[in-house]
Amino acid sequence: MKGAGRPIRSAMGYSTPDRVVVRGFDLPGDILGTLDLGAMAFLELTGRMPSPGEARVFNSLLVTLVEHGMTPQAMIARLTYLGAPDALQGAVAAGLSGMGSVFGGGAEAAARMLQEADGKDAAFIVDGFVRAKRPVPGIGHPLHKPIDPRTPRLFAIAAEEGCSGRHVALLEAISAEAEARTGKTLPINATGAIGAIMTEMGFDWRLCRGIAVIGRAVGLVGHIAEELRQPIALTLWQRTEDEVTRNALDERDQA
Amino acid sequence: MKGAGRPIRSAMGYSTPDRVVVRGFDLPGDILGTLDLGAMAFLELTGRMPSPGEARVFNSLLVTLVEHGMTPQAMIARLTYLGAPDALQGAVAAGLSGMGSVFGGGAEAAARMLQEADGKDAAFIVDGFVRAKRPVPGIGHPLHKPIDPRTPRLFAIAAEEGCSGRHVALLEAISAEAEARTGKTLPINATGAIGAIMTEMGFDWRLCRGIAVIGRAVGLVGHIAEELRQPIALTLWQRTEDEVTRNALDERDQA
Amino acid sequence: MKGAGRPIRSAMGYSTPDRVVVRGFDLPGDILGTLDLGAMAFLELTGRMPSPGEARVFNSLLVTLVEHGMTPQAMIARLTYLGAPDALQGAVAAGLSGMGSVFGGGAEAAARMLQEADGKDAAFIVDGFVRAKRPVPGIGHPLHKPIDPRTPRLFAIAAEEGCSGRHVALLEAISAEAEARTGKTLPINATGAIGAIMTEMGFDWRLCRGIAVIGRAVGLVGHIAEELRQPIALTLWQRTEDEVTRNALDERDQA
Amino acid sequence: MKGAGRPIRSAMGYSTPDRVVVRGFDLPGDILGTLDLGAMAFLELTGRMPSPGEARVFNSLLVTLVEHGMTPQAMIARLTYLGAPDALQGAVAAGLSGMGSVFGGGAEAAARMLQEADGKDAAFIVDGFVRAKRPVPGIGHPLHKPIDPRTPRLFAIAAEEGCSGRHVALLEAISAEAEARTGKTLPINATGAIGAIMTEMGFDWRLCRGIAVIGRAVGLVGHIAEELRQPIALTLWQRTEDEVTRNALDERDQA
Repeated sequence: MKGAGRPIRSAMGYSTPDRVVVRGFDLPGDILGTLDLGAMAFLELTGRMPSPGEARVFNSLLVTLVEHGMTPQAMIARLTYLGAPDALQGAVAAGLSGMGSVFGGGAEAAARMLQEADGKDAAFIVDGFVRAKRPVPGIGHPLHKPIDPRTPRLFAIAAEEGCSGRHVALLEAISAEAEARTGKTLPINATGAIGAIMTEMGFDWRLCRGIAVIGRAVGLVGHIAEELRQPIALTLWQRTEDEVTRNALDERDQA
Repeated sequence: MKGAGRPIRSAMGYSTPDRVVVRGFDLPGDILGTLDLGAMAFLELTGRMPSPGEARVFNSLLVTLVEHGMTPQAMIARLTYLGAPDALQGAVAAGLSGMGSVFGGGAEAAARMLQEADGKDAAFIVDGFVRAKRPVPGIGHPLHKPIDPRTPRLFAIAAEEGCSGRHVALLEAISAEAEARTGKTLPINATGAIGAIMTEMGFDWRLCRGIAVIGRAVGLVGHIAEELRQPIALTLWQRTEDEVTRNALDERDQA
Repeated sequence: MKGAGRPIRSAMGYSTPDRVVVRGFDLPGDILGTLDLGAMAFLELTGRMPSPGEARVFNSLLVTLVEHGMTPQAMIARLTYLGAPDALQGAVAAGLSGMGSVFGGGAEAAARMLQEADGKDAAFIVDGFVRAKRPVPGIGHPLHKPIDPRTPRLFAIAAEEGCSGRHVALLEAISAEAEARTGKTLPINATGAIGAIMTEMGFDWRLCRGIAVIGRAVGLVGHIAEELRQPIALTLWQRTEDEVTRNALDERDQA
Repeated sequence: MKGAGRPIRSAMGYSTPDRVVVRGFDLPGDILGTLDLGAMAFLELTGRMPSPGEARVFNSLLVTLVEHGMTPQAMIARLTYLGAPDALQGAVAAGLSGMGSVFGGGAEAAARMLQEADGKDAAFIVDGFVRAKRPVPGIGHPLHKPIDPRTPRLFAIAAEEGCSGRHVALLEAISAEAEARTGKTLPINATGAIGAIMTEMGFDWRLCRGIAVIGRAVGLVGHIAEELRQPIALTLWQRTEDEVTRNALDERDQA
């Protein structure tokens, strides 16, 4: 096939007998003990060391989505661990598979809207979504009303570190416009804030879901740690199967 | 089924309209802007805030396994992304599925050996593995010789922060004993160091693979970010399929 | 949350001490030894036993996508198995994660186009895709030219068993129209044929990807079986990592 | 690395412009319309066409594990689909990740025991497990007592088709011995029967989990099809999260 002749290159890293090199830096000498995991994620994604402010903002974005209680992803990871306790990696992988468009796509959709705004104003953008009968990304929350408590904090941290600008402003204008247009309470939610700040930092919207995935990987290992001490997956399964069986037998008896 | 009546409890976190609570802490107020991602992982796994020293050590363990060049996991994530570019979560999940006993199990096996040592000395432990013809966990490396350059750095950081003690000493004695017994160069490798330090910090060996999984989730998003800019998965596939097809046609023609 | 009170019902199956019931049928008495795996898949998806003709057609659709040589999915499964040989399920899961929109979405897209055609003719439909600069689903193939050899066979089987009608005819018209309009060779490919026949059989387009997933699960277990006897994953990795490392060292030396 | 120079070969299949070849057979001409999915799986795993009897037995083994009601794997697939409805492949992959040692390992463990029996008799084998305080694989069932209704049917089909012999007899002797030794009801369960018949047919025990994985892939697509028509994942999640939140708030208020 025609691409087969192309060379395979990567700037991510390599090892020699006495060195491990990551993005051009010596892992033991330049990174270990110096970079925290969020700063390392920044280095991995951008190829350069973050400033202290960038590291603080990026860590905040990653930390926001780590833990959100008993989400479907946490349930998935626990149920998978029940069936494959010797393959912890599979439980995390299964849980992450549920961070798709519905749960992991919010920041991505908001960032895409901002990155493709191309000079259009909030009224024009909101109008496009309203006419298409599609929800505006990054605003509104089923539980957190009238505001999502994470949003002002994330925006404050971003502003403190110089990572707030026209994209955050545009999303705020979009939220206000959508509230005016629909009469609903549509505050910027946490994933919207993340999408806006990622855009301020120059990240491609295609990578925003990756922030959700990294954060949730941490949270899922946390849930597996709790499952080891205080298991719930078996109960969850047994209740569900009992109810399904009972309902099926009732239907059979009534038929 | 008999467990169906048990209540379902979790101390991981919950949300109310105006709050997001993680491990008893207010996410926006206590955590965002304050905790880095490694410290957050410590909180998730243990239920308490790490000291600054613990956070530095734990971040170092997590950072060690983020990036290791073009590993099978990186290849898997890139090949998966080629087939499902709108489901980044699946590419990370697939890559993590390859962090099993071979690549993700090293720290786990070393920590288990140390946590089950139960007073036995290095000679006794090494003897058990040698007799069973099984490799001693946490020592030896196919590439890094005579030492793994990450190990002294990890041990130095752990010692600086008070996270080094009898478990690290036992693993060092095991390495020395195994070298004496076999005549081979068997330095403590990075995963062995991680297993020993996790044990010093009180973590169950069953969670060590989780450290590898969290770190590698970061690295895999990094590889997907590079794949977006500079793709290699298509070339990798085409070369492989071309070679397989060519060899199959040659065999057919010779038959 | 508001859906929490709804009962949980399922018609898929249940067990009692002396019975296993699937879709209302007794598994040992009515199914084992009688239904082949494709017929069982039909029962699972539709809730009714297939006629012999339906079983033959449905088996053909499932069999078509089982094996396609050294696909990215086969490479993924083998590389995953290299890292987690004690978790075969994870290797299959990882490989399936790569059956996304690019490789697993063809039948789905073609079926959706046909199911949403709503009386529009081939010229109108092709015109819509051409104007939107999007490829028409289900037609064209990078390798199989001038025809995809699987398509006439699938259509013949479907016709023999009474599963061919206006949807197959529409896709044939779309292929002809697209060829006339673009001057390119755009035969109906195998996934297009599958999408059309699934539509003839009354399946929702959202389930077409499931046919690809079931078939490929069989193929991936086949590749793992070969990997056990004649491994290639290690070679694949070593070559790739060697090349990446060599190129990285060259660039460093030239810098 | 030293394996990098090895050629990459595979006998699974390849394509040329006018052909798709699987295991040496022409897919459209020799396979489509002729082989059912179970027979195709046999061809994939063994490289040869099954006899009609082998196809019937192998289909029965694959069909046995397709559907087992509301298993953890079905719950996982549905919860994953809730979060990623545009990536059906990920929902099946996540569900399969839960077919690990606990749910997918039964046939594997029984087959391994039989394949490594090496002339030892049932009493010796059972004694080994009892002394090690490990359960004997392939016997006993939490629900199906005094017998697993699938087992006699599978053994009858295997006997009818000439696939029953000394391995089935050994497992029957092991079941009888274990019952005599422990005083418990320990009938051969369905996965034990599958492991014994796979052994009769000459399959490596390492592939038995693959039979469970293929069958369950079919079942999980079935559950996703039902989830599309009659969703339960949202209710399952909401109930669980509501209960966790309520319990957490109660604990907080009592503290």
